[in-house]
Amino acid sequence: MATDPRNGTERTPDRLEAFSDAVLAIAITLPVTELHAPEPEHGSLAAGHLKLMPEYAAYLLSVVLIGLYWAHSHFSGKLLQKTDHGYNLLSIGFLAAVSITPFPDRPLFEHLAGDAERRTAALVYLGVAGAPATWWFARWIYATARRLTDPRLAETYLRRLTIKYGVTALAYWAAFALALWNWVAGVVAAGIVSLSYVVPPAKPIYKLGQQPG
Amino acid sequence: MATDPRNGTERTPDRLEAFSDAVLAIAITLPVTELHAPEPEHGSLAAGHLKLMPEYAAYLLSVVLIGLYWAHSHFSGKLLQKTDHGYNLLSIGFLAAVSITPFPDRPLFEHLAGDAERRTAALVYLGVAGAPATWWFARWIYATARRLTDPRLAETYLRRLTIKYGVTALAYWAAFALALWNWVAGVVAAGIVSLSYVVPPAKPIYKLGQQPG
Amino acid sequence: MATDPRNGTERTPDRLEAFSDAVLAIAITLPVTELHAPEPEHGSLAAGHLKLMPEYAAYLLSVVLIGLYWAHSHFSGKLLQKTDHGYNLLSIGFLAAVSITPFPDRPLFEHLAGDAERRTAALVYLGVAGAPATWWFARWIYATARRLTDPRLAETYLRRLTIKYGVTALAYWAAFALALWNWVAGVVAAGIVSLSYVVPPAKPIYKLGQQPG
Amino acid sequence: MATDPRNGTERTPDRLEAFSDAVLAIAITLPVTELHAPEPEHGSLAAGHLKLMPEYAAYLLSVVLIGLYWAHSHFSGKLLQKTDHGYNLLSIGFLAAVSITPFPDRPLFEHLAGDAERRTAALVYLGVAGAPATWWFARWIYATARRLTDPRLAETYLRRLTIKYGVTALAYWAAFALALWNWVAGVVAAGIVSLSYVVPPAKPIYKLGQQPG
Repeated sequence: MATDPRNGTERTPDRLEAFSDAVLAIAITLPVTELHAPEPEHGSLAAGHLKLMPEYAAYLLSVVLIGLYWAHSHFSGKLLQKTDHGYNLLSIGFLAAVSITPFPDRPLFEHLAGDAERRTAALVYLGVAGAPATWWFARWIYATARRLTDPRLAETYLRRLTIKYGVTALAYWAAFALALWNWVAGVVAAGIVSLSYVVPPAKPIYKLGQQPG
Repeated sequence: MATDPRNGTERTPDRLEAFSDAVLAIAITLPVTELHAPEPEHGSLAAGHLKLMPEYAAYLLSVVLIGLYWAHSHFSGKLLQKTDHGYNLLSIGFLAAVSITPFPDRPLFEHLAGDAERRTAALVYLGVAGAPATWWFARWIYATARRLTDPRLAETYLRRLTIKYGVTALAYWAAFALALWNWVAGVVAAGIVSLSYVVPPAKPIYKLGQQPG
Repeated sequence: MATDPRNGTERTPDRLEAFSDAVLAIAITLPVTELHAPEPEHGSLAAGHLKLMPEYAAYLLSVVLIGLYWAHSHFSGKLLQKTDHGYNLLSIGFLAAVSITPFPDRPLFEHLAGDAERRTAALVYLGVAGAPATWWFARWIYATARRLTDPRLAETYLRRLTIKYGVTALAYWAAFALALWNWVAGVVAAGIVSLSYVVPPAKPIYKLGQQPG
Repeated sequence: MATDPRNGTERTPDRLEAFSDAVLAIAITLPVTELHAPEPEHGSLAAGHLKLMPEYAAYLLSVVLIGLYWAHSHFSGKLLQKTDHGYNLLSIGFLAAVSITPFPDRPLFEHLAGDAERRTAALVYLGVAGAPATWWFARWIYATARRLTDPRLAETYLRRLTIKYGVTALAYWAAFALALWNWVAGVVAAGIVSLSYVVPPAKPIYKLGQQPG
């Protein structure tokens, strides 16, 4: 057995990563079970498919959002040296928050087309959308405070990520606040924040002479 | 191929851990499919969401409980040197018992608000809640009796865990017995036992001169 | 990169094992979604639970059977040196056959209590129960014919497994044939075959001087 | 820590493979939940099973198709040296496209038996069937353009795969176009393309003196 700089409940991050990947894999696949088979409308199956468009759009949105969260989890696992009990519990909060994001997608799309409830639907959607980014930020703050990150990473790089994650969480809640005043503006703003996840994360910067490899 | 101190059906614990993680990942994510889309109540979507509060609470409770079981599984895998057929079968019992815990959550929350059936709902809930801790204890007794644990761990440490796991299982059944007399007291007692899982497990203690690293 | 005695589509068995574990983890957990919340019968929740007994029994049976298949997969992975395309495809057949086993459990339990359809329910159950053992045997024959097994294993040991797996598959189909004549006898016979999986598999026997470790 | 030729968001392919395997494992198992328990038809359970034949056929088709995609993913992971953010996002597109393939299977089988909507059902089926092959091709083009593949692989081998994947994707869309004219011919053509996946992929060819092992 190799030497082990971890103690107590600390372990290398790979097992949390595996669990996390499994939860996200299920969360990204489950929305498919929400899709209904089309019922021919007045004898037309094509019209039946058209009527299901909000479901298809909701499925697409779920997959894109959970997929982006997975891609960023995939990256961030590289930055950790170890995980502990507190980090694991915060991760469960994050994963539960992501798993629930597909839930308010369909009401949002169904109510988009103009009824009086679309503001409520939008607010619920935005509240649920802001949760994962908030858990992510809380987990990161915990990881840096407990020094769970790779000790070779430059402090400036860690600080930059802290700012980035904080700003993202804040931006979701700003979108929520905006939606109290104008729900369309709020949804658009949150959409832009989510889209920013498509940008690849910045390359890790290591302390002088300590980059791996 | 490295030397292999295991024989017969014995293997290193990593594959059981992977299977176990996968089952818990699914068990923690599946309750999301039980959430219904809100129906506007008398034209109000907000009222529709309010009416679903027992569902949301049940989902939250499921996630917290399964998440805590995962976090402790994550820790305990570190204590094993190997697993065998009997340990695998006991693990399946444990996993099935955890998977079923979300099931009686919703009836409990729905009946909380005063109808005559809440005592039955509470007893079912408590019976199901006590099962995973009981399987966990049985599996641990088996692991120590069959010497599947890391041989470097101190005997006092192993004994301490045996006592802890036994007391936890017993406490759940005491809560069940209490509920026969007063169901509120029983549910509160079981809640306190579950909350005790938030406390991180004690650091492993190794025999003199045998700590890894 | 280490030297690699595999070529073409051959890979070490670990990735097939991971996929296989994931499928079995899902298959063992999904039946929980089939459990219905109890409806109070004539105002009694306890009676509602009693009425769901066939569901609970079906869930239990599913978990036990899939769990045993997992435990044996867990063991057999140890016997392989590599996997190839054909072995992967046969594994998918095996996994699909296992995934579908929970399906006829409930009809069987519901019809047990005496109606005219219980013979049909029993035959469907037995046909589905025999499939995984048959795929398992086919896959094993393929693995030995293509020399995918660990080359250090003794030929007598491999032959013994071939006989064991062949007899098990045959025993399921004998139970099916028996059920054509007397369905109770058929179900009991198949139950005994399934229970035989509780016995741990025999320790691997290696060629002289080639045992690992 | 070993030397690490990857930087930025690049990681070894194993974690993407694990995520990918998990998604495919779920996608292949979920269709089982779509199977309904048979209802005795005019008192006959056997007739009830017969009526469910389109469901059984749809389940079988889903399992075979997703299983084949998994087997090819299993192979292709061997060809990569690393993955990056863009490759991960394209993989999510591929996985979502595969997850959704079981969806139009049942309408196809239900409408096969002659009603006026079978052409629409066939076109939807073919559009959904062509998507995974198209994402697969796009991902491969990206991987070769970004040099994510194992640098020891011969250029001729990579080019041969590019042609193979491109032709497969094109063949699906040709089947779609054919179905606009004659839906039966289109479905048969797509079936032949899917069946071609049963053929094992060609053995990797390495540059002179660079084959692993």
